[in-house]
Amino acid sequence: MKKYESIPFYEIRIDGGFWQKRQKVNREVTMPSVLKQFTDTGRFAALRCAWRDGMPNKPHIFYDSDVAKWIESVAYALEQGPMPELEMAAEKAIDEIEKHQCADGYINSYFTGVEPSMRWKRRWAHELYCAGHLMEAAVAWYHATGRDRFLKIMCRYADYIEKVFREEGSAAFTTPGHEEIELALVRLYYATGEKRYLELSKFFIDHRGSSPLDWEENEWARRYNQSHVPAREQTTAEGHSVRACYYYSGMADIAREYGDAELEAACERLFDNIAEKRMYVTGGIGSSTYGEAFTIDYDLPSEIAYTETCAAIALCFFARRMLLLNPKRKYADAIERALYNGFLSGVSLDGREFFYTNPLEITLAHHFEHPSYKEREWLPDMQRVEVFSCSCCPPNVTRLIASVGDYIYTQDTDMVYMHQYIAHNAQIGSGSIHVSTDYPANGSIEITAQGLLGKTLALRIPGWCRDFTLSVPYVMKEGYAFVTLSDETKIVLNLDMPAYLVKANAKVADASGKAALMRGPVVYCLEGVDNAFPITGAAVCAPLQAKVLDNCELGLPMIETTGTVPADTEAAPLYSPLDTLPKDVPLRFIPYYAFANRGESDMRVWLPIQRS
Amino acid sequence: MKKYESIPFYEIRIDGGFWQKRQKVNREVTMPSVLKQFTDTGRFAALRCAWRDGMPNKPHIFYDSDVAKWIESVAYALEQGPMPELEMAAEKAIDEIEKHQCADGYINSYFTGVEPSMRWKRRWAHELYCAGHLMEAAVAWYHATGRDRFLKIMCRYADYIEKVFREEGSAAFTTPGHEEIELALVRLYYATGEKRYLELSKFFIDHRGSSPLDWEENEWARRYNQSHVPAREQTTAEGHSVRACYYYSGMADIAREYGDAELEAACERLFDNIAEKRMYVTGGIGSSTYGEAFTIDYDLPSEIAYTETCAAIALCFFARRMLLLNPKRKYADAIERALYNGFLSGVSLDGREFFYTNPLEITLAHHFEHPSYKEREWLPDMQRVEVFSCSCCPPNVTRLIASVGDYIYTQDTDMVYMHQYIAHNAQIGSGSIHVSTDYPANGSIEITAQGLLGKTLALRIPGWCRDFTLSVPYVMKEGYAFVTLSDETKIVLNLDMPAYLVKANAKVADASGKAALMRGPVVYCLEGVDNAFPITGAAVCAPLQAKVLDNCELGLPMIETTGTVPADTEAAPLYSPLDTLPKDVPLRFIPYYAFANRGESDMRVWLPIQRS
Repeated sequence: MKKYESIPFYEIRIDGGFWQKRQKVNREVTMPSVLKQFTDTGRFAALRCAWRDGMPNKPHIFYDSDVAKWIESVAYALEQGPMPELEMAAEKAIDEIEKHQCADGYINSYFTGVEPSMRWKRRWAHELYCAGHLMEAAVAWYHATGRDRFLKIMCRYADYIEKVFREEGSAAFTTPGHEEIELALVRLYYATGEKRYLELSKFFIDHRGSSPLDWEENEWARRYNQSHVPAREQTTAEGHSVRACYYYSGMADIAREYGDAELEAACERLFDNIAEKRMYVTGGIGSSTYGEAFTIDYDLPSEIAYTETCAAIALCFFARRMLLLNPKRKYADAIERALYNGFLSGVSLDGREFFYTNPLEITLAHHFEHPSYKEREWLPDMQRVEVFSCSCCPPNVTRLIASVGDYIYTQDTDMVYMHQYIAHNAQIGSGSIHVSTDYPANGSIEITAQGLLGKTLALRIPGWCRDFTLSVPYVMKEGYAFVTLSDETKIVLNLDMPAYLVKANAKVADASGKAALMRGPVVYCLEGVDNAFPITGAAVCAPLQAKVLDNCELGLPMIETTGTVPADTEAAPLYSPLDTLPKDVPLRFIPYYAFANRGESDMRVWLPIQRS
Repeated sequence: MKKYESIPFYEIRIDGGFWQKRQKVNREVTMPSVLKQFTDTGRFAALRCAWRDGMPNKPHIFYDSDVAKWIESVAYALEQGPMPELEMAAEKAIDEIEKHQCADGYINSYFTGVEPSMRWKRRWAHELYCAGHLMEAAVAWYHATGRDRFLKIMCRYADYIEKVFREEGSAAFTTPGHEEIELALVRLYYATGEKRYLELSKFFIDHRGSSPLDWEENEWARRYNQSHVPAREQTTAEGHSVRACYYYSGMADIAREYGDAELEAACERLFDNIAEKRMYVTGGIGSSTYGEAFTIDYDLPSEIAYTETCAAIALCFFARRMLLLNPKRKYADAIERALYNGFLSGVSLDGREFFYTNPLEITLAHHFEHPSYKEREWLPDMQRVEVFSCSCCPPNVTRLIASVGDYIYTQDTDMVYMHQYIAHNAQIGSGSIHVSTDYPANGSIEITAQGLLGKTLALRIPGWCRDFTLSVPYVMKEGYAFVTLSDETKIVLNLDMPAYLVKANAKVADASGKAALMRGPVVYCLEGVDNAFPITGAAVCAPLQAKVLDNCELGLPMIETTGTVPADTEAAPLYSPLDTLPKDVPLRFIPYYAFANRGESDMRVWLPIQRS
């Protein structure tokens, strides 16, 4: 099996365009804001293992993972420049982690501080999940700072985990209830070269779904954490969608490291099931609130969409690893779809607030308080908030934005694949690539490759793109344009980027007879606040007549199209003859990721089609 | 205050047309079928008060009401012809009721047989509700058979209730948790002339919402059974919609009997709130499953519509009483809307099965079993059933169909109002009116009035009707055509009855941008089974081009219109460019009341509008 390599984000400087702005807000606003929220809610204090009954802010079993992801984010931001205050806060947290590591290597502020007798007793209790996040943080911290204290702490913990799970089998379970450690151990192996960590990851992958210790009577419970069948027999994406994609990421890592074709095939099957049948047009996954889970093929309800921000992130993790197995465009397309839509909607434009869930439709009239009313308790929140009790998403957002450069490339010895179009400067061996672009504001991408003579640059022509020009000779193959590089090659790629309407497969009931507006990879939505009439009854005219506006206050242009709304929206009888047809109106769309940044509003991604 | 009188159904013989067929199925199929179901489930056995722990079919607190409504139905059917078997079964039930009436007059098979110590202790426990239904049954039985045994039993019980509630105030509550006795006592007064029963009804009306004994801390609970404010201060329809309309019916009765203008004004306010803001286009009311309740103005969701069959019936009861206060067309319009739509959908075409809830939209794809799925637990059933554990609806359906003649007329000394167009022969004093019509299959109504010289016949021109012809001179006033009768007057009324589209007020979110197809008073729906393509994405073309088909298998003609559906419904990628516009197709609509008679199917009342 051929192995591809990543060009890690720290070899890449994002020096302009869409993501530079996002990274700036991430560094300057979001990360300090998350620090404050996590401090205020006791997440950092919890590390001191000093909580006692009667004190406020009782630690939660997964607080360690929140802090860990935040430290990981700081590490990533440090790669891009100093942040002394945040660095200090992270070091202080690491001090506490070090101080409260048990003699045997165990680390968990909740179990050490609150329920020491329950260590390794409850599969669902997130111990290995927290351990995994701490490992990822430690690896990142080591790379960013060169200081190996945290890494050594986590190696001791990993060694202890190996002893408990592989050697003794002394825990009450064999594999974690919430996956994460599998992919983290692979990263720990990469950072240390210690193959036992890779083997331990493989151990968790191999035993999931087959260990009698982990068996649960209830089918829902088995499926919820992907333990219903062993890894290599998995065919459909099931259960909690974040757990699922963390797991599949670990599976893909192990497939790659061990050249395990059966495991790779399972990964591709699972990816295809998601991308072809269980993914929102926004790249969101996990349609059901109940269990934050996948349900069945084509069940993608718009208004009660769950689509946790972390799930879109987890899909990016998974797809990135699939690209390292096999650089197929579909993986990069899915990453792009999630990045610009269902992931980015998870954080407010000002960087301070977060969505846990990301619906595709909001009807204000369905949200009301009334004593005789409970049917819509499943409706997602309409506004982002600064912190949730379960705040996995905020530090997951910060670490992905800070490391978004990771998604640009994969390479092997003679080929460099450019999967995402982000303005940057990359060091590639002794050569470099510079990309200048405002993508996805427009489709013009200027690439300069230097010192890469003899290599081939494979440029992804996105699945959404129907027309493009390339200023140099190329060969098209499976969605990539292959360009042979000279010592210095200047390339101008122009992806034609008109607004367009998409439809969903007819089995997606909530999109049936409807269309969504996109431009490039960006899904648009209609929000009440931009339109002078109620949008609940709006339809979009097709064939599309769209005007891309100059207005870029929301980060990307708004788009105006022709649509229709009911002719009279004023006071009318409850029911009356339809004497007036829907009237033409301009509809003003905004990028989906920007919805709910200007107060509560009706919102639609999918709109009925009015033939014009 | 002027008082109008009813012309009761037993003065009327329905001798053709739409309702004769329904009454035949009601007599021959539905009533025997309900008898069997109620026998099999122990509802008749419960009257023996012999249930003991460990026996099957534990009696329920409201079983007496189920049996009572069934007896009432038999009485009504007996008025139209002998039914010896059913009459015998009713008499046997009355035997048991008589046998288990307590010495003090109390009757309740549940409390007498199962929890004797809890008599009058729990306001919610339906004792007075059951009493009311037994009174209604006794009044009906007396009229139909001339035998006064049951009536006397119920008078003894009413006397005892008067003692407990008015004289002693010895119950744990002042007014019933579930209204019904208020209107029943008025009927008992009409049957016996005993004014104390009318006064007792007024007592319950007057004390509701003001008795400290009935006060509940929880606002929801107070509103649920309309005890949040006293009758005369009520402004909006609140809480359990069946309770509400039974209560409002009693209020209207008391307003009429006492000439209580303040109470009448409250009734009209409540009616207007329902008819102008809280009623489905089908005449269904009570949009929320939670509490089977009204919610807020314009909250009329289609797919999770609750709209209990009994609530549509209760609305008919209420509106009929409003007509006796003031013969305004709006009341008759509401009755007609409910009768032909949200009421009639409650029973299958074959008369054997019942809906408790009557949704306006079914999307099969939303109904699936999956372990990770609970969000749609509020979705109504898609198929009717023979019996529910809470089977209030079936015998309510049978009694309304058997007495539908009650809704045709109101009169005063010199004026006869004809509100509904039903083929019949009515005895009116020494005169008669004969109506021959297939309405609502078409709008042609032939009326012959004999022996009514000097009277004026007021013919309702329905609110939906935009054009009509009348073969005799008339004066139009407030929706009625007034015709002066000679000794014999032959009248042909032709209500123009094209298919037409209606819209809802823009605040009805689920109907926004959509239209419903109607013809006359009949709401139509699109059902998957009649169409060669999935209807989930269907839109209806406007202006409407409709063809009324000959096919009357469902009781009324089907209607074919032009509509559109997505062009390709075959295998397609999950998302793809919208390259083909929705294509024209014929849409075949059926009367809404007939939906779900041919298996589970997608169904729509409201459809997006495609401009043609």
